[in-house]
Amino acid sequence: MQTRPPLGELGLNSGKKTRLRRILFRHGLKNGTAIFLPYDQGLEHGPRDFFANPQASDPAYIVRLAVTGGFNGIAVQIGLAEKFYWDYAGEVPLILKLNGKTDIPSDAEALSPVHASVEDAVRLGADAVGYTLYVGSPAQERDFAQYRQIRADAHRLGMPLIVWAYPRGAAIEAKGGKDSFYAVDYAARVASELGADVVKVNFPHPEKTSDVKSAYRAEFSPAQAIDGVVRSANRTLVLVSGGEKAGDDAMLTKARLAIEAGGLGLIYGRNVWQRGYDESLRFVDALKEILAQHPSE
Amino acid sequence: MQTRPPLGELGLNSGKKTRLRRILFRHGLKNGTAIFLPYDQGLEHGPRDFFANPQASDPAYIVRLAVTGGFNGIAVQIGLAEKFYWDYAGEVPLILKLNGKTDIPSDAEALSPVHASVEDAVRLGADAVGYTLYVGSPAQERDFAQYRQIRADAHRLGMPLIVWAYPRGAAIEAKGGKDSFYAVDYAARVASELGADVVKVNFPHPEKTSDVKSAYRAEFSPAQAIDGVVRSANRTLVLVSGGEKAGDDAMLTKARLAIEAGGLGLIYGRNVWQRGYDESLRFVDALKEILAQHPSE
Amino acid sequence: MQTRPPLGELGLNSGKKTRLRRILFRHGLKNGTAIFLPYDQGLEHGPRDFFANPQASDPAYIVRLAVTGGFNGIAVQIGLAEKFYWDYAGEVPLILKLNGKTDIPSDAEALSPVHASVEDAVRLGADAVGYTLYVGSPAQERDFAQYRQIRADAHRLGMPLIVWAYPRGAAIEAKGGKDSFYAVDYAARVASELGADVVKVNFPHPEKTSDVKSAYRAEFSPAQAIDGVVRSANRTLVLVSGGEKAGDDAMLTKARLAIEAGGLGLIYGRNVWQRGYDESLRFVDALKEILAQHPSE
Amino acid sequence: MQTRPPLGELGLNSGKKTRLRRILFRHGLKNGTAIFLPYDQGLEHGPRDFFANPQASDPAYIVRLAVTGGFNGIAVQIGLAEKFYWDYAGEVPLILKLNGKTDIPSDAEALSPVHASVEDAVRLGADAVGYTLYVGSPAQERDFAQYRQIRADAHRLGMPLIVWAYPRGAAIEAKGGKDSFYAVDYAARVASELGADVVKVNFPHPEKTSDVKSAYRAEFSPAQAIDGVVRSANRTLVLVSGGEKAGDDAMLTKARLAIEAGGLGLIYGRNVWQRGYDESLRFVDALKEILAQHPSE
Amino acid sequence: MQTRPPLGELGLNSGKKTRLRRILFRHGLKNGTAIFLPYDQGLEHGPRDFFANPQASDPAYIVRLAVTGGFNGIAVQIGLAEKFYWDYAGEVPLILKLNGKTDIPSDAEALSPVHASVEDAVRLGADAVGYTLYVGSPAQERDFAQYRQIRADAHRLGMPLIVWAYPRGAAIEAKGGKDSFYAVDYAARVASELGADVVKVNFPHPEKTSDVKSAYRAEFSPAQAIDGVVRSANRTLVLVSGGEKAGDDAMLTKARLAIEAGGLGLIYGRNVWQRGYDESLRFVDALKEILAQHPSE
Repeated sequence: MQTRPPLGELGLNSGKKTRLRRILFRHGLKNGTAIFLPYDQGLEHGPRDFFANPQASDPAYIVRLAVTGGFNGIAVQIGLAEKFYWDYAGEVPLILKLNGKTDIPSDAEALSPVHASVEDAVRLGADAVGYTLYVGSPAQERDFAQYRQIRADAHRLGMPLIVWAYPRGAAIEAKGGKDSFYAVDYAARVASELGADVVKVNFPHPEKTSDVKSAYRAEFSPAQAIDGVVRSANRTLVLVSGGEKAGDDAMLTKARLAIEAGGLGLIYGRNVWQRGYDESLRFVDALKEILAQHPSE
Repeated sequence: MQTRPPLGELGLNSGKKTRLRRILFRHGLKNGTAIFLPYDQGLEHGPRDFFANPQASDPAYIVRLAVTGGFNGIAVQIGLAEKFYWDYAGEVPLILKLNGKTDIPSDAEALSPVHASVEDAVRLGADAVGYTLYVGSPAQERDFAQYRQIRADAHRLGMPLIVWAYPRGAAIEAKGGKDSFYAVDYAARVASELGADVVKVNFPHPEKTSDVKSAYRAEFSPAQAIDGVVRSANRTLVLVSGGEKAGDDAMLTKARLAIEAGGLGLIYGRNVWQRGYDESLRFVDALKEILAQHPSE
Repeated sequence: MQTRPPLGELGLNSGKKTRLRRILFRHGLKNGTAIFLPYDQGLEHGPRDFFANPQASDPAYIVRLAVTGGFNGIAVQIGLAEKFYWDYAGEVPLILKLNGKTDIPSDAEALSPVHASVEDAVRLGADAVGYTLYVGSPAQERDFAQYRQIRADAHRLGMPLIVWAYPRGAAIEAKGGKDSFYAVDYAARVASELGADVVKVNFPHPEKTSDVKSAYRAEFSPAQAIDGVVRSANRTLVLVSGGEKAGDDAMLTKARLAIEAGGLGLIYGRNVWQRGYDESLRFVDALKEILAQHPSE
Repeated sequence: MQTRPPLGELGLNSGKKTRLRRILFRHGLKNGTAIFLPYDQGLEHGPRDFFANPQASDPAYIVRLAVTGGFNGIAVQIGLAEKFYWDYAGEVPLILKLNGKTDIPSDAEALSPVHASVEDAVRLGADAVGYTLYVGSPAQERDFAQYRQIRADAHRLGMPLIVWAYPRGAAIEAKGGKDSFYAVDYAARVASELGADVVKVNFPHPEKTSDVKSAYRAEFSPAQAIDGVVRSANRTLVLVSGGEKAGDDAMLTKARLAIEAGGLGLIYGRNVWQRGYDESLRFVDALKEILAQHPSE
Repeated sequence: MQTRPPLGELGLNSGKKTRLRRILFRHGLKNGTAIFLPYDQGLEHGPRDFFANPQASDPAYIVRLAVTGGFNGIAVQIGLAEKFYWDYAGEVPLILKLNGKTDIPSDAEALSPVHASVEDAVRLGADAVGYTLYVGSPAQERDFAQYRQIRADAHRLGMPLIVWAYPRGAAIEAKGGKDSFYAVDYAARVASELGADVVKVNFPHPEKTSDVKSAYRAEFSPAQAIDGVVRSANRTLVLVSGGEKAGDDAMLTKARLAIEAGGLGLIYGRNVWQRGYDESLRFVDALKEILAQHPSE
């Protein structure tokens, strides 16, 4: 177990620090932790994700939920940001997701193409940008090239950069899959080495040991694994994502372990909005209880 | 059944709103609905589409038809726009189609290359631009890259962006084909997520259920399907395209269902001009009767 | 049989109209028709094309032939333009061919790379630029991308754009080959849709019906075929190319049919200079007799 | 055995000479030799490299080690440079590594994509930039293209350019592998021909003679091999890298031979920090003893 | 046998003419002929080319040889130019070679990537730039694209452009190989059509007739072949390269035939420096005797 690094030690320039401080200390629990609402599944998976709760198909419903639920931010693509954020501008921080893709073609050489710019984020009043990096994809050359431009623009404009660091593609499938401790640990480190301010990772599965690098074939508890991931990210703040909807207990445990390991917080989407409005808010309250116990200094 | 979203709620900037208002309230029925005449088949399929009515090979004939028929706009490529629109400039809105391709090479990795710019559209006095996005194509990376530039230019110049959102390529063929409710619904959502102002879709076929994602294997009526598509597009206005020439009754039904579901209107080409001049005008009148019953507020 | 469209109806800007008028009414027969001398075979096929008449290997010989023969223009690549045109500058219009390739690698995914710019053409005093578009090639994406830049530059600088519209590549071979009426008709239309001012096509072979689209499997005479092609090109002026050397009677017939169909004129190379100087001039005179009978109004 | 070329003969511009002089004569032994600490393994191999000494996972630990150990520089990626160097700025020279990759995808067509710029290096106060060139990779075309930009920027901004010249990819595997004298000798020469100021090479293995070019199948001692490599690099200064952790004696011998051959110095990472702090410092002292015996004039 | 074209007829702009005149009339024999020393083999083949005469590994040795031997120029890559030319600046003209590659990967789709710019050449005081064009390579599209930029920059900056026109790649191997009269003749023509000022070719082998185009299957003497090549190059001046070291008599004969055919001169590297210093100079003297007999007017 380790301490979450304070904002003042991250080497941030003035704009990034201003915006991160706004996200972490003026919204949500205002205690230096974070819970974000991601809403890019309509692009990533299609409208089928909304069948469990048809109201969730309406972006206005989701923005309202983010405001009412006291989230630290909502992450959407450019189209929804332009059409829906204006009505709630400033009530909840906007994280503009700059790249994304459909899940129709194969993921063997996964790459998430950019379709918006950091300038778009500035224009819309966003407080951060999001970028999906498919760590280990055979397309990493093109991925790094487009990432490089985003990183440079985010630095220039003082915009915090949140990297969705996802192991993906044929090569990692052959080395134990995208969820192993090895894969997630490596992904967190890559985000840190390449200059992410915040990294979003899936919770590691240390029990997935077949085909992973030998160092990761030892026995690690989930707590040890997430602790290692946060350590690998060093001064890049760590968010744990929810992934597909699962049982609430499992989700709360994941949240608790991540926060105890020094993580910044959570970014849960389908686990939040694939249920009724009130039930969503109750679940968010339970998550915030965990965050409340681990304020930043 | 849902309401068509009003222009004032779409988050449009001043230029886009000005031009869309002109298209929807100063042309056609002037009631907030739209019927467009697309004429890019000479590029997309070749002159064979004109054999049914050889006069239709002449762009001057088509522009005259658009003016006389009281269309809300005519969509053509840069070459025809430059050579034929000057003579009717301002009589019917011009939608400059910015990309297109021949149907000679394989569609397995379909991509529609750009050959004109938003600046060209401004110069020619166009009121909107059109872009074909092949949703789910293995070439989506390059597709999104060129789309991104168009979207940014359209925003900068206040030019409404109409996206031809067409599922296409080997991957969607393996997942139920390009016409399924699943495919069309996803395509509409992608256009919305990526910032289209208007989306053109084919009418969904909910009965095509083999190989589609499980959520779409239930029984949906055509009305339910088009309603879902319009919902997925949320604040992106929906146009239903005609496709190949079919029976008038089928086309009128498609039109009625689309409008009742909250769609913006129709974009019918071959179904209009693959018949004699007067017959074309009579068919357009029948379509406009449907539109007249569903004005925007 | 149709009328050749007058310059005033083509939607040309001032620079394009000035230069086209110069080519068509100040050179050659000065009657609105055109006969051009293409000389890019040294690049496209190599010096072997000059073995039939070794003098033709010398570009100075060819430029002299173009001047003496009263051509409306000579089409060459940048290298020959820079080394040989200065000595005859202004005596015969220069058409700078902007792209080209060797015939050594396979044509399955044919693309003709650009190696000169419209600015080069302006600097050299050219009156038009030429671009080879391989219609239907699997490389059409890259082809359209480089074409787009040329088209935009030609518009900006008022330079007429002549498109060599050649069906080419594995896909068209599988659909009846590059010479069919279907292929040539489609190619002419593509040039028009994409903004060519003039299009150069091979004479269509309506008798090649196997594997072509069904609409083209009917019986068409050569006259009907070339008439269809000119119609498909609409306000893009049509040049018929000579291709490999053939019998004079066949070449004269081709020329006559093209002109009667409303074509602008001819662009014959090997058929002209793969014989002695005087014989070349006599053949050109015979071609001009045909052109003289079909002046533009 | 040859003499290390003096700074004044390398054809350096003023900025490069200033920074190289600072690195070589104001830090480390201040005698014109160099020992660098590379720390990009978290990106290149993942956190597994830190399992031998978990403290080494923390970049702050490593920077402290570089300062205390009296290194001539520390080489890190942009992310760690931004987050950790500020606290030690100026205490040890920073070498910003501009490209890098994970080792998850195949190395058959190895390329190390760029993710930071020479401008980033200037902004952070770095005294040199690093670039990995995969000599002989089938991707050499794209490699040279990105290298070219870096070289030009480094020249323009007076920033010394250190090239990690690594034979890599399927082609060199088929020609004796990446460690042969042939491969390393060629790599050193390529860096020199392409304008590197300093080149980092692996120690050559002259005993690997199968499949190498015939000239290299003779018997060469390690001393002869490293001497040849330094000669091939001519006025590009040579650093020998440590590679995977090996026995101290072997590492010291490698160091001695390299320095005696006229090399500039060493760049040892895992051999330094994959052990406890004090032991690291003791090993560095042993290396520096060798360097002390071969000062530049 | 033909006359070498005079500088005044080549259509050169002022800068190109100035620099070519300096190379041809102020250096070497000062009689309008040329002998160049190429030294890019360290990149193209690796240090193994220097094993025959280890001193030749040192670029300083080679530059001295070029000065002492009275060459018209020395052709090197950017790295050696920056590190070694400053000491002899102006004593012998510098030809900056702008592209190059290793011979490690396959040549089936050969392309020589650019790693320096015409601006670099200007900055270093060079009097010409060199570019390797792999005529007929399946990569010709990318080759022409990078060539185009070089050609345009060379024109803009008045820098003579020497093209190494080398048939290469799988396609030419299938058409008789890279050395046939057909291949070399075509390559010379391509350089001329694309705007080279000077072209470097290998001496053609007219006896290699299998698989070449039929026109080249007749019997040609070496004199006829090189005469044809010079004719195909027309106003692009022709240099014959030496290639691998061969017998002196053969090299002298090649030289004599090339000059008698109207060639500009020679560019011999390994045949010069793969022997001792004095022997090199004696061989150069023998070559210059031939050049002395064919001055330009």
